Amino acid sequence: MKRIDNFKSIIDKYEIIFFDAFGVIKTYQGLVPGIERTFEYLEAKGKEYYIVTNDASRSPVELAEAYHKYGLNVISADRIISSGMLTKEYLDLQVQDGIVAYLGTPASSHYIDSTGLHTLPVSAINNNNIDKVSAMIFLDDEGFDWFKDLNKTVNILRKRTIPVIVANTDRAYPMSVQDVQIAIGGIASMIENIVGKKFIRFGKPDSQMFMFAYDLIREYRPVNKKEIVMVGDTLQTDILGGNKFGLDTVLVLSGNTLAKDVDTRITATGIMPTYICDSAVVGSGDLGF
Amino acid sequence: MKRIDNFKSIIDKYEIIFFDAFGVIKTYQGLVPGIERTFEYLEAKGKEYYIVTNDASRSPVELAEAYHKYGLNVISADRIISSGMLTKEYLDLQVQDGIVAYLGTPASSHYIDSTGLHTLPVSAINNNNIDKVSAMIFLDDEGFDWFKDLNKTVNILRKRTIPVIVANTDRAYPMSVQDVQIAIGGIASMIENIVGKKFIRFGKPDSQMFMFAYDLIREYRPVNKKEIVMVGDTLQTDILGGNKFGLDTVLVLSGNTLAKDVDTRITATGIMPTYICDSAVVGSGDLGF
Amino acid sequence: MKRIDNFKSIIDKYEIIFFDAFGVIKTYQGLVPGIERTFEYLEAKGKEYYIVTNDASRSPVELAEAYHKYGLNVISADRIISSGMLTKEYLDLQVQDGIVAYLGTPASSHYIDSTGLHTLPVSAINNNNIDKVSAMIFLDDEGFDWFKDLNKTVNILRKRTIPVIVANTDRAYPMSVQDVQIAIGGIASMIENIVGKKFIRFGKPDSQMFMFAYDLIREYRPVNKKEIVMVGDTLQTDILGGNKFGLDTVLVLSGNTLAKDVDTRITATGIMPTYICDSAVVGSGDLGF
Amino acid sequence: MKRIDNFKSIIDKYEIIFFDAFGVIKTYQGLVPGIERTFEYLEAKGKEYYIVTNDASRSPVELAEAYHKYGLNVISADRIISSGMLTKEYLDLQVQDGIVAYLGTPASSHYIDSTGLHTLPVSAINNNNIDKVSAMIFLDDEGFDWFKDLNKTVNILRKRTIPVIVANTDRAYPMSVQDVQIAIGGIASMIENIVGKKFIRFGKPDSQMFMFAYDLIREYRPVNKKEIVMVGDTLQTDILGGNKFGLDTVLVLSGNTLAKDVDTRITATGIMPTYICDSAVVGSGDLGF
Repeated sequence: MKRIDNFKSIIDKYEIIFFDAFGVIKTYQGLVPGIERTFEYLEAKGKEYYIVTNDASRSPVELAEAYHKYGLNVISADRIISSGMLTKEYLDLQVQDGIVAYLGTPASSHYIDSTGLHTLPVSAINNNNIDKVSAMIFLDDEGFDWFKDLNKTVNILRKRTIPVIVANTDRAYPMSVQDVQIAIGGIASMIENIVGKKFIRFGKPDSQMFMFAYDLIREYRPVNKKEIVMVGDTLQTDILGGNKFGLDTVLVLSGNTLAKDVDTRITATGIMPTYICDSAVVGSGDLGF
Repeated sequence: MKRIDNFKSIIDKYEIIFFDAFGVIKTYQGLVPGIERTFEYLEAKGKEYYIVTNDASRSPVELAEAYHKYGLNVISADRIISSGMLTKEYLDLQVQDGIVAYLGTPASSHYIDSTGLHTLPVSAINNNNIDKVSAMIFLDDEGFDWFKDLNKTVNILRKRTIPVIVANTDRAYPMSVQDVQIAIGGIASMIENIVGKKFIRFGKPDSQMFMFAYDLIREYRPVNKKEIVMVGDTLQTDILGGNKFGLDTVLVLSGNTLAKDVDTRITATGIMPTYICDSAVVGSGDLGF
Repeated sequence: MKRIDNFKSIIDKYEIIFFDAFGVIKTYQGLVPGIERTFEYLEAKGKEYYIVTNDASRSPVELAEAYHKYGLNVISADRIISSGMLTKEYLDLQVQDGIVAYLGTPASSHYIDSTGLHTLPVSAINNNNIDKVSAMIFLDDEGFDWFKDLNKTVNILRKRTIPVIVANTDRAYPMSVQDVQIAIGGIASMIENIVGKKFIRFGKPDSQMFMFAYDLIREYRPVNKKEIVMVGDTLQTDILGGNKFGLDTVLVLSGNTLAKDVDTRITATGIMPTYICDSAVVGSGDLGF
Repeated sequence: MKRIDNFKSIIDKYEIIFFDAFGVIKTYQGLVPGIERTFEYLEAKGKEYYIVTNDASRSPVELAEAYHKYGLNVISADRIISSGMLTKEYLDLQVQDGIVAYLGTPASSHYIDSTGLHTLPVSAINNNNIDKVSAMIFLDDEGFDWFKDLNKTVNILRKRTIPVIVANTDRAYPMSVQDVQIAIGGIASMIENIVGKKFIRFGKPDSQMFMFAYDLIREYRPVNKKEIVMVGDTLQTDILGGNKFGLDTVLVLSGNTLAKDVDTRITATGIMPTYICDSAVVGSGDLGF
């Protein structure tokens, strides 16, 4: 484990960089200041990069558009690997017909819908269609009435033995410098405990997220895990997951993990990044490549 | 472990009977048919009885009134031991001043309020009064906006290091023959996991509930645990809790545990009642005492 | 929550003091230096005191003898409340006959044996007597072959539906300034997960420990919870348990909780002692009462 | 979910068959009777097959030799994917030097050793070499003194912040028709709880096991997940893991899951195989291909 002052020197050692989104590239306030220089440098050096995110609330196209609005035009949809994509792949492979009931916004389901399956919000499930429900997916913490629809979800799952997919494993996510919001992953754990069934979770630290990105790259060129580094702000998801998959990792201190806590947290959890770096920002003086 | 056909024969062996409420005396449809004969018999024989319930949604007086509405007039408030009473005792002993923030209906807080503490619903906590919040209590799953107030609760507990009391340990409760509803105990577990702090739980199977009832009796007469039997419909709360406290127990099959599942569940959990009985109803032919 | 320099000033506010043993009165090196002055002061002032300990490895008589060997002669067996005593009470009330199989040393079982029940170490259970096993107790991490007897315990519990009592809830305990040892509570949790059954746990933070002590006092004089203070070195057991029972609490920094970590741990766990004090030692200058 | 009488008809639908080992091909008594016909049929039809096993106690070469001893000569080492192979890959990628301390038999470590890393049993770690320990691996429940070496492991992990790999996620495994034995996965969970650190687990249901097998196939030919079926006897590992990876699955009733329990367990866990079949044996009359 090495402390590195200069994120550029890390980029120089690897061919492919995986970035977590929240806390690394953006925060609740917008882009991490200076992060556009990092992508400028990556492009200049011909390095590949992917954003590997536990965000199933929108499609990769919509996630990319959000970066463009912030002015980070370089990030295209095909650079984004989301837990929603794994959910979509699962449904394609394992759910042939029937209704996929979901918790989330219409936008979050729209993406899944496009596979040809019929999706319906939990609020639209009733005695007439409950027997056709063939899967349940947890996509986003917004877009539904928590009291009505969470109680309804429990009762649907008591009546139907169907696969349940949780497309975001996070328990909470930051809303402002001091507030967090309960994520759909936290809600899903509560319901899993109540109904006593086993849900399927996609999202870091699960290695299937990293495998999905790794496979995308291998479709057009050979790759070795030693060429890839995972950059993230959270020990339990980005660093643990990347490390378990066999990747080198960089913990950045621009998000979830604060500089003052980093040593205590690493010792307490035993999760060790390969490098620790203040942020994923390439210094403004470093661009005279 | 013995199967007993005749609940009367169990009453005859003990001096004091503790009853769970839901699934034993009443269900979502009203009183368990014939249960009034049980109380008639208890009164005739001079046996003592208490209702020991994980219901903190109302005061004992209001809980008793609900029985009276159903026609079970014999049950007075002083026969009811609720997890709300332990919450009240805790606040009396350990919280001197400040605001007690709560999740629940106004009715649920009214009872706590009467101790002289100032209670406020989570929805009324804001930047001006958050520093005065000296305890948080989870009372009932109704009476608040789940989305707004659960997220707010998480953020209050991230900012304030205060005791948090969960006055109902159940995760879900029955609403109809086929549906359940998420209980405040299930919600509290989700929030406890998110904030990573340790909450204080009152309610069966915790022995403090049984101790509270036991102490009430000892105030006016000596008592031995061998004279008491606990009657309940749930292995994990009524039977485990009663047994751990040293009481004999009766599992009745009129609620949570169905006759067809009882053997499997006892073997699977290892929780063994002293007796198993169809219900807590004394047969109509048995009253010719 | 107040930091107090002078343990004597805490004693002066209460009538009855409950002490944890390990980390408060003694450590792996012997008595906490100066602790004899605390008991001298308690005796002089006519205060009552009890040692409330999760130690089921020996009887109260043997535990008291260990203090005498160290020179703390004032502590008699009737001052010691152990989780072993609750185990004994449980067996007296709930297990009438058969064999009580145990994991622990012969000394740990000797105490239980004296109730008239027949105890046998797990190593002595075989096909001829397994059907007579009516309870299993976890007493101590020593006195048996871990490989043989833990595997045997799993298989006994898969074949017999019987109450299982864990008489020590700790997961590990200190052996030296730098080493800990796995406690029987940690082993019991592993076996509980493997067999999927529900074990009965006695020991702090469970309130039954405090209730037992409280009841002993009430046998000879009336008492109010406000007159008692619990002194311990561990937030999760001594402080959480005492606080939940309604007692004021003192966290001392002579054992499990180090001075440098105390603020972080209180914030992280949300478990708040009434007072924090360096140790339970009364200053040598304070005895000129 | 379909019940299928004829395992041959399942083979006919897929190009590649993944088999769990224990409970599918062999039991504690030797080979599942008739299983050799299944492999005869696979060979005759030119189907590919792999054994995907949570067994890290020996190398694939040694595991294959064990099948040969039983007379199943067709299974070669390159057909076997074990959680030990993932452990080896992890060490190759992430641990450059130092000592890898292990719990298990010398045979289990021999395989890891061959990567060039220096392995030492926990019993050989002492004050002179502890600072060089760069990883800890849990390989097998045999080959060490449980009391001494488990306590030692706890203390090594309290002193060293290093990656910890659990190469077998099972909690227990069958030893005879009625007895099980605690597996290294169960022991590892106990130690993980005591030290409070996060261990890395390889083995089903984790998708990295399936990915490893999938990647091996892709090295020499293109493959689609729809061409593969996973055959196993355990819902929580084989079926959940295969299903999550996107594979069709067959639950066989020759091992962990008994015919009488299968419906209850599927409903209780919500884990649904694509097919249920008595065993993986091709009928003796079916070989007239």
